[in-house]
Amino acid sequence: MKKVILSINAGSSSVKVSVYSAEAGQPPVQLAEATVSGLTAPPAKLDYSRGGQTVSKDSEVADKTLSQRDAFNVLLETLIGDRDLHQINGKEDIDIICHRIVHGGDFAKPQIISDETFHHLEKLNDLAPLHNASSLAIVQACVVQLPQARNVAYFDSQFHASIPAHIRTYPIDQGIARKNHLRKYGFHGISYAFITRATAGFLGADVDRVNLIALHLGSGASACAIQAGRSRDTSMGLTPLAGLPGATRSGSVDPSLVFHYASDVGKLSPSSTKDLHISRAEEILNKESGWKALTGTTNFGLIASSAEPEMQLAFDLVVDRISAFVGSYYVSLGGKVDALVFAGGIGERSDRLRKAVVEQVSCLGFAIDEAANGKKIENVVQDVGKAGAKHRVLVCLTDEQFEMARGCSENRELW
Amino acid sequence: MKKVILSINAGSSSVKVSVYSAEAGQPPVQLAEATVSGLTAPPAKLDYSRGGQTVSKDSEVADKTLSQRDAFNVLLETLIGDRDLHQINGKEDIDIICHRIVHGGDFAKPQIISDETFHHLEKLNDLAPLHNASSLAIVQACVVQLPQARNVAYFDSQFHASIPAHIRTYPIDQGIARKNHLRKYGFHGISYAFITRATAGFLGADVDRVNLIALHLGSGASACAIQAGRSRDTSMGLTPLAGLPGATRSGSVDPSLVFHYASDVGKLSPSSTKDLHISRAEEILNKESGWKALTGTTNFGLIASSAEPEMQLAFDLVVDRISAFVGSYYVSLGGKVDALVFAGGIGERSDRLRKAVVEQVSCLGFAIDEAANGKKIENVVQDVGKAGAKHRVLVCLTDEQFEMARGCSENRELW
Repeated sequence: MKKVILSINAGSSSVKVSVYSAEAGQPPVQLAEATVSGLTAPPAKLDYSRGGQTVSKDSEVADKTLSQRDAFNVLLETLIGDRDLHQINGKEDIDIICHRIVHGGDFAKPQIISDETFHHLEKLNDLAPLHNASSLAIVQACVVQLPQARNVAYFDSQFHASIPAHIRTYPIDQGIARKNHLRKYGFHGISYAFITRATAGFLGADVDRVNLIALHLGSGASACAIQAGRSRDTSMGLTPLAGLPGATRSGSVDPSLVFHYASDVGKLSPSSTKDLHISRAEEILNKESGWKALTGTTNFGLIASSAEPEMQLAFDLVVDRISAFVGSYYVSLGGKVDALVFAGGIGERSDRLRKAVVEQVSCLGFAIDEAANGKKIENVVQDVGKAGAKHRVLVCLTDEQFEMARGCSENRELW
Repeated sequence: MKKVILSINAGSSSVKVSVYSAEAGQPPVQLAEATVSGLTAPPAKLDYSRGGQTVSKDSEVADKTLSQRDAFNVLLETLIGDRDLHQINGKEDIDIICHRIVHGGDFAKPQIISDETFHHLEKLNDLAPLHNASSLAIVQACVVQLPQARNVAYFDSQFHASIPAHIRTYPIDQGIARKNHLRKYGFHGISYAFITRATAGFLGADVDRVNLIALHLGSGASACAIQAGRSRDTSMGLTPLAGLPGATRSGSVDPSLVFHYASDVGKLSPSSTKDLHISRAEEILNKESGWKALTGTTNFGLIASSAEPEMQLAFDLVVDRISAFVGSYYVSLGGKVDALVFAGGIGERSDRLRKAVVEQVSCLGFAIDEAANGKKIENVVQDVGKAGAKHRVLVCLTDEQFEMARGCSENRELW
């Protein structure tokens, strides 16, 4: 029996929905993909493709400000309204909806959403108000508007449940750590699960034997040491703030820095609501820092192609921070590394960044093939390493929506 | 002409003074050494040795609480009152006093203290109130009580003035960074200067050609990548909080962690004074964390020799964090590493820690010689690496007081 799966990926300024047709235990087949972007820089825009063909591109949705939930409704209307998308003629045709949720707390597996799990998810909002709120709003909309569908929560943190205690523990009061759930969780895990599986396939290796240093580099960026197919360490921490800088995120800085940045950083930010408590400090470090604070742009492609001193500084800074994680994860894996893998918007598109990182870590036995690296990345996994080098260098077109849909097709409870 | 130099090293719970006889341009010769310790756990105790011979050990000073300044006065009285210390019969016999000051802001060189530099140093207190206040209190006491002596400030940060811009810059608003002096400074630099010189001598290399990964591991702990004799990167940051965990310091944690640790962490700690503003967050992360928070003890020797699970967790956690820096600095130095050097109380004394770290980073070409590593470290630099390994592993008995006195003997302005 075929089922229609919606895979929803809500970011801070966009909502993306991929539509799949799936059978139990079979890889899902993508039918359509629709994205509303620019939520934080109106007017929002809609991109819609069906069967790999563009139906609409950059079409303005409305000049009013849209919430993530509004954007989801626009996407749902688009799918239902498209007469050429035969599999969805009404809401009742949608069988399964999977939701990417950033912070899953102690959940080590995806959760079929019931009243109880939804209540638990809401509590996680306290730990990650900046990150979970928008996807939870969409979960709630789906529960109300599509009562016949099964909703499944996938967590960016779940892949990292395997991180050993001495790596995930913070050296702080352990009573408070337990009570307040303070430990390294790690994120981008849905992407790392995809990368691990795709790379193992490419290398002809078993998923549970592959050792990787994987880099998910987008406007949020992280690194992951993958040992025997499982996360051993990752650069993000209690929240996605720790580790690498992002477009507007500082990454790891001296934990006392923010107290020297502004007074009253412990106070609630004006963007807090009754339910969501965001300190001014968290807002500064998550929303007002990163390479945008250095250069004025969130567009890393611009930074990588500019010779302006502040652009060059930002580029060098990012390369330095990424290379440091490659070095430390190399050690964490004891040098047993099947490949260094670049993924995410920047990892997939910036050949200049890949070249700079690989050159910085060349002493470990990584080397780039400039011709291969300069080509457009069209395969799910593509080799950009030099033949004969000690370790391989790959690029992976990661696909979180597919990873979630694939998980659903293999989840017997849904069939 | 011979001069008497006092070298003062004031920590959070102890004050140490080393006395040297020095001639211009010659290595100083140590005459005596005196320490008052236990300031935060009264009664304070005095250790005093002259000419390498113990004069008094663990003698209780007083049962009242002593400030760093009181402790300095006890030390001064001890030196002057010792009739067998012929070089010091009164305050007027002290020619030069060098002071270890943690945070030197933009000072790239030691400073002979004038009214103007003292005023500037006081301003640095805002950046590092937890770290500079005690040594500044002693500087002030010396200026008043020993008006004939020249006072010289040595900064833990000065060695790191060579860190390149893309490494020392935080990806935050650069206007605020400039205004509030927010960048990586790095600390333990007096120790790293000693380590660099001593290790270069041991290796028969020029100081300005030696490449090291140096680890200063004590109750405060840091790592440093030294390229061509100069600091290229170090694990501490704006303050000594960043990087490795310490006895009571968290080291790097998710910068948003402390906002989930307790409410009101932005408020001033009750231990703040009119002049010194310390947030509750900084107090938690500097004074109530680290391996003491995991195990109940600040004594790393106890931790390293225990099989209790929480001790083992703390040990493994520290080894993991140190090894991560070794990996990242290996990459930062492009693999051109003359030696991995252990120093500081723990680095010098814990053979078990050295063994665990070197084993974790063995994939980079470091290897320990278990017999050599198990021996008492008696030489200033001692080899503990395996013969034939790609890179050397050394232990260095670092000596910040000597490094400061040596600097004074070479400073023409003082002669």
